[in-house]
Amino acid sequence: MDGNQFEMTLAKSTFNKLKNIVGKSNCSMAKEDLACYAYDANVKGQLPEAVVFPGTKDEIAQILKLANVEHFSVIPRGSGTGMTGGSIPLNGGVVVVMSRFNRILNIDKDNLVAFVEPGVITGRFQEVVERQGLFYPPDPSSADYCTLGGNLAECSGGPRAVKYGVTRDYVLGVEVVLATGEIIRAGVQTMKGVVGYDLTRLLIGSEGTLGIITSITLKLLPLPEAVKTMTAVFNKIETAAQTVSEIIRCRIIPRTIEYMDNASIRCAESYLNAGLPTDAEAILLIEVDGSKIEIDDTVKHLRIICLESGAASFTVAESEDEAADLWKARKAISPSLFTYGPDKINEDIVVPRNKIPDVVKKIDALRLETGLQIVSFGHAGDGNIHFNIMLDKKNKDDLKKAQIAVESLFEFTVELGGTISGEHGIGTAKAPFMSKELGQNELDLMKRIKNLFDPNGILNPGKIFPVETT
Amino acid sequence: MDGNQFEMTLAKSTFNKLKNIVGKSNCSMAKEDLACYAYDANVKGQLPEAVVFPGTKDEIAQILKLANVEHFSVIPRGSGTGMTGGSIPLNGGVVVVMSRFNRILNIDKDNLVAFVEPGVITGRFQEVVERQGLFYPPDPSSADYCTLGGNLAECSGGPRAVKYGVTRDYVLGVEVVLATGEIIRAGVQTMKGVVGYDLTRLLIGSEGTLGIITSITLKLLPLPEAVKTMTAVFNKIETAAQTVSEIIRCRIIPRTIEYMDNASIRCAESYLNAGLPTDAEAILLIEVDGSKIEIDDTVKHLRIICLESGAASFTVAESEDEAADLWKARKAISPSLFTYGPDKINEDIVVPRNKIPDVVKKIDALRLETGLQIVSFGHAGDGNIHFNIMLDKKNKDDLKKAQIAVESLFEFTVELGGTISGEHGIGTAKAPFMSKELGQNELDLMKRIKNLFDPNGILNPGKIFPVETT
Repeated sequence: MDGNQFEMTLAKSTFNKLKNIVGKSNCSMAKEDLACYAYDANVKGQLPEAVVFPGTKDEIAQILKLANVEHFSVIPRGSGTGMTGGSIPLNGGVVVVMSRFNRILNIDKDNLVAFVEPGVITGRFQEVVERQGLFYPPDPSSADYCTLGGNLAECSGGPRAVKYGVTRDYVLGVEVVLATGEIIRAGVQTMKGVVGYDLTRLLIGSEGTLGIITSITLKLLPLPEAVKTMTAVFNKIETAAQTVSEIIRCRIIPRTIEYMDNASIRCAESYLNAGLPTDAEAILLIEVDGSKIEIDDTVKHLRIICLESGAASFTVAESEDEAADLWKARKAISPSLFTYGPDKINEDIVVPRNKIPDVVKKIDALRLETGLQIVSFGHAGDGNIHFNIMLDKKNKDDLKKAQIAVESLFEFTVELGGTISGEHGIGTAKAPFMSKELGQNELDLMKRIKNLFDPNGILNPGKIFPVETT
Repeated sequence: MDGNQFEMTLAKSTFNKLKNIVGKSNCSMAKEDLACYAYDANVKGQLPEAVVFPGTKDEIAQILKLANVEHFSVIPRGSGTGMTGGSIPLNGGVVVVMSRFNRILNIDKDNLVAFVEPGVITGRFQEVVERQGLFYPPDPSSADYCTLGGNLAECSGGPRAVKYGVTRDYVLGVEVVLATGEIIRAGVQTMKGVVGYDLTRLLIGSEGTLGIITSITLKLLPLPEAVKTMTAVFNKIETAAQTVSEIIRCRIIPRTIEYMDNASIRCAESYLNAGLPTDAEAILLIEVDGSKIEIDDTVKHLRIICLESGAASFTVAESEDEAADLWKARKAISPSLFTYGPDKINEDIVVPRNKIPDVVKKIDALRLETGLQIVSFGHAGDGNIHFNIMLDKKNKDDLKKAQIAVESLFEFTVELGGTISGEHGIGTAKAPFMSKELGQNELDLMKRIKNLFDPNGILNPGKIFPVETT
């Protein structure tokens, strides 16, 4: 995994070989094409040397075999909506875009199983299965753009993970081209299966460093009969945080408990004019699902818990449109943050749910210490808080302060029994912080697994593990 | 992983070193002690050379380090209730019994998380959490005896997997002593976490071949408010199988849909006198849970589906005692089977749920072909059928016929898109059949992972992968 072993300029002869593999119209070395593949949703990378759009697993196998022989790096990419740099080139290399793997192969209603290609857009897949009365719960905020393959690579979560778990919990099996070019099928098509090691879940969340996913078998659920969306508004942020714990303590698992702090509320409101209470210190956006008869009862119970815990108000959305507007506001936070500054340092921590009040206090302290705008929101129901420091990175002083704040929050998170990445992966952005959470034994073992799968270090180098300079 | 590299007699000096590690009262080389550790619930192994009962992870690390230096094999063991030989010695070696790791360390009601040691009995853990209004769904039939560590090693399932998934779905993190003696912590204590490769799930289902689990962090759920248990009786076995598909097609996911064929029913009845209809071709034992208000509605719906699909009768248990009696009958099948013959070949296949009628027909055909008693029952709701051939293994003709029938059923299962092991693991019993389901690439990769974790092949040799004779 020595990043320096790669030539920074792909030989013309190598590109010709790639062209022979994928076809002339499915590859490019033109700067204007390459420019599109140097970024993800949060991290700036470098220009790749070439981009290819393979159409079959065999083409991918040939590309990877060639990469091992001619020593270029290969960077797999879905829609590039990741937040930690998992899909960006670091030192040239060839970006493999999976957009042609965009077919929903089969939705098996008898068995509640779907067979899909990795380039299928998550939101489109959700729509298609919901039209058939079925349900695919994982819902990353980027669902309208991101791909299922990318979701697997990062083990994406989203608001509904509180009740339904994350991407990992819905993958029964995968077909993968390993870094060496070998093709394997891992997992099963059935609800259970324990034949040998769990390669499926080893590949999920491996951020394209072990193999390239070419086919996915997903578990589906019946679509819940009814959904209710509600908001609880709080004058004190600590009260909101404590209410999350109280809901869980009362053994209610809503399908989402989203949290927005005052800065998030103002941001979303200025963007959307949705009528959010901009003077509130926090809002919880709660959603429950189930049978019609059951959720009315749950909503009653939630109203009592929220008001008794100190909510200033509790409102249930009257219609699907009203609920959709609330979600629009929630999803507007991330893009609207740039009103606070041209740059964003976006983190994604998780703590045990009853530690959210501690995190809220810590973030307040960091806001005071740094003098920077810090916005926090996220999936409070599972303890997953997105923490955003807004700044101008050209201001080196502010950048330094922000970096110190991030490090301090990570250390605090780990002390609380939490993790430094809930659903955004490690990529390049968090690679320097791996040792805050993992010990040397764990890191060494992971590196040895990486070397076992990818002995020449050609696949997505520099991700998860920082590139070591020799 | 060459089984022949191990001395069949543990040197006295090695035993003395083991004694120094675990203490005199926690180890033995006495034949009468060793005899207890040569079996699991289904497979006869050989006598180990020694048995040790370590009390700390550091003792386990020392044992494994010693094994690597002095070349003896180490066989980890919970309660030995496995069905495929995962915990039995094959060529001597030292059995490491985890019974002293029997503490429930903490049940965190605020966060719905439990911290336990691997030697805790699953059923005891379930009782303790249920008394606190919480719920640990995985429920292998051996729950009264098996350990949570063993459940992780095999990725146990059970009836409730239909709705709630298997052991894998409830493990947030583990502490493990690797085969080399290194100690690692994998996973998290939180609901989400994606820091590096998913070592937790690589270890789950690895049948004690990669490391020895010393601590477990489990996710809990709120205990469902109410449970209803019901039976549907069928005069035609195909109708019962089709009804399972119909329930799923109607998008109802009960927490269990257990299936018993006529031979199972008669067996359980002769054992228990529970009043089961011994002339029925099949019974489905269905259980639903949720809020009180919701499940009454679901039961009504299930009654309509079952009767319209052709059930001869549909009965809801009137009381908890009545429901408990039904489960007692279901759980009696496995031990009562020996009325049909002194030996049992027990298999555990899974097919897509709508293929259960095909499996039922295939089993009928095999019954005719072999002339042997074949009993099938299991977790029809997730397509998981336990298939038992009863025979006297001393009758070589019958044994041969049974082996051919098993092989034929495995091939048929894989053709249907199924798997040859749903929840029993591979152990030694299914190791010869791995290539029926996996290709050479997958098998090679798994072996390379085994070698990475256990370069000297000291940990549970001969499991999953047959011992290669050189």
